[in-house]
Amino acid sequence: MENKRIGKSTVEFKTRPLIAASSSIVGPLEGQGPLGNTFDIVLDDNLFGEKSWEKAERKMLLESVKLVISKVGLTEKDIDYHLAGDLLNQTISANFAARDLQIPFLGLYGACSTMAESMILGGMLVDGGYARRVVASVSSHYDTAERQYRFPTPFGTQRRMTAQRTVTGAGAVMLCNAGEGPVITHATVGKVVDLGIKDPSNMGAAMAPAAADTIVAHFKDTGRTQNDYNLIISGDLAQVGKNLTQELVAKEGYDISQKYDDCGMLIYYEHQDAHAGGSGCACSAVVFCGHLIEEIKKGNLQRILFIGTGALLSPTSSLQGDSIPGIAHAVAIEDAKGVRKEWHI
Amino acid sequence: MENKRIGKSTVEFKTRPLIAASSSIVGPLEGQGPLGNTFDIVLDDNLFGEKSWEKAERKMLLESVKLVISKVGLTEKDIDYHLAGDLLNQTISANFAARDLQIPFLGLYGACSTMAESMILGGMLVDGGYARRVVASVSSHYDTAERQYRFPTPFGTQRRMTAQRTVTGAGAVMLCNAGEGPVITHATVGKVVDLGIKDPSNMGAAMAPAAADTIVAHFKDTGRTQNDYNLIISGDLAQVGKNLTQELVAKEGYDISQKYDDCGMLIYYEHQDAHAGGSGCACSAVVFCGHLIEEIKKGNLQRILFIGTGALLSPTSSLQGDSIPGIAHAVAIEDAKGVRKEWHI
Repeated sequence: MENKRIGKSTVEFKTRPLIAASSSIVGPLEGQGPLGNTFDIVLDDNLFGEKSWEKAERKMLLESVKLVISKVGLTEKDIDYHLAGDLLNQTISANFAARDLQIPFLGLYGACSTMAESMILGGMLVDGGYARRVVASVSSHYDTAERQYRFPTPFGTQRRMTAQRTVTGAGAVMLCNAGEGPVITHATVGKVVDLGIKDPSNMGAAMAPAAADTIVAHFKDTGRTQNDYNLIISGDLAQVGKNLTQELVAKEGYDISQKYDDCGMLIYYEHQDAHAGGSGCACSAVVFCGHLIEEIKKGNLQRILFIGTGALLSPTSSLQGDSIPGIAHAVAIEDAKGVRKEWHI
Repeated sequence: MENKRIGKSTVEFKTRPLIAASSSIVGPLEGQGPLGNTFDIVLDDNLFGEKSWEKAERKMLLESVKLVISKVGLTEKDIDYHLAGDLLNQTISANFAARDLQIPFLGLYGACSTMAESMILGGMLVDGGYARRVVASVSSHYDTAERQYRFPTPFGTQRRMTAQRTVTGAGAVMLCNAGEGPVITHATVGKVVDLGIKDPSNMGAAMAPAAADTIVAHFKDTGRTQNDYNLIISGDLAQVGKNLTQELVAKEGYDISQKYDDCGMLIYYEHQDAHAGGSGCACSAVVFCGHLIEEIKKGNLQRILFIGTGALLSPTSSLQGDSIPGIAHAVAIEDAKGVRKEWHI
């Protein structure tokens, strides 16, 4: 057995699994945002022709998977595993989409870090020889998340300025052991970190310590710094969490200020009234599957560190007095210099 | 890269990851059941010294992990990954236990199939060279599950005879790339299967089609039959689901009647009034981590097929008219003939 571990929390993918395709679907507000033209599908409304927001979210996840499979000219039968998760109780968006897809399915829960988590595990499945092709996908929806975590949107409850807006959308990537596309080279799996934040309207602050912990772990394990990346981008820390992360990383002796950004800061215009910025599983997913993949393919980004960030919030644990723990997983992705066209398995 | 796939849904672990240790904690009722003396810890009450059932469940999961690590003479720092999940919304038992453990964490959601799911992914992480040691753990709790999925237990709502009892407990296994113990040889990842059952008091029937699908897939992929196993055991189908699974597998041309049993049928005496039998993530977990591992180590079982079975039920999806999809994952485990004492990484 070959050791693929580097340092305490990082693995190096020797075969460099490929992201052969990606797909993204977003709601109307996200479509009107600065990245609007990078998404495959922009919905006309938040219901996507369904009778409930939950069914709309499930349909987004399902369609994002179908789309990413069709982009490489394959069908569901050609995919070895589907890894997916979402924010809803019992991850029903992922489970019901999986029911319609009929691909061997592994369900994940990493809150808003799930896109990165699914890419890490999917990368291991492909790199380890357990799969030729894995689809990793996630979804979130503003109205389903508000109803479940805070207040149903029709209440019109006023939201605090530190609050973030859950992105309505779904993203999927196709990971393959051969083909063309950007490659995954390293993955750093995070620990659950909790500095005692209890305010569910300030999730960025709750997640920042975990994001900083994982970024620092990645640097220590790999010997890399911000100089090795064109972009270091977290999932959905938004304004408050982004600044805090940068500070916490600096305290550990690493400056990321020249390269650091956050998906939650990119997805909405300020005039769209999303308060601190975007959040949700789909925030990092659609920014990655749309904008970031496009920039890598254009040659504008040669190497990025993508950090999925999750607030492990539960209304039940909050009511019982618990704080909000966070988790973050990092994936290093780079432009593929070579092209491998032969399927290895 | 070596191809480790066999057939459509099965992988063969060439290095045969070891189950170096297992641990189990159960509630009082489970402790009074037929397997009572196979568990490490039997609680005096369902609160485990905590102020809420949810905090008790979290503590069981945490203690099961600490116990399994201590059994092999290691500490949390020696473990590369912790994979865990549970039934509660946002899998708070797993997440909060992970916060206290400080091991790189990957959260899973497979409903009651999560023990098998975590062993499969853990096996891949060890076999693939991504980890030397992985702890996989799950929990469930009768009172937390009833409150979340049906009615709070203090209501005293009458339960139907097809209903199952969620096992109060937690189980953990330590998967290693070297050491002593039974080994994982194959894993079959299931698809989400839904034959339209809508009755949340008849989860066994909802899960049976998925269990049958995965057992048949395992047989087709490996060429094995019931003759290759001492025991084929599903997670928590209980009386109704067990009979249905056997019938559905027979329809596909495979007889499992001589070797087939279900963890949900083993954990309670009939006079304990658990109705159709046990269920919950912990049902298969504690029967596996206690009874089954013990029987393998004693030499009474040389090779078993362990099938985690999950009902992908959500109160929200049920209220919106959806049926209950099921999923099942199978793990082939056998007595290790040889002993590997050297750590490979």
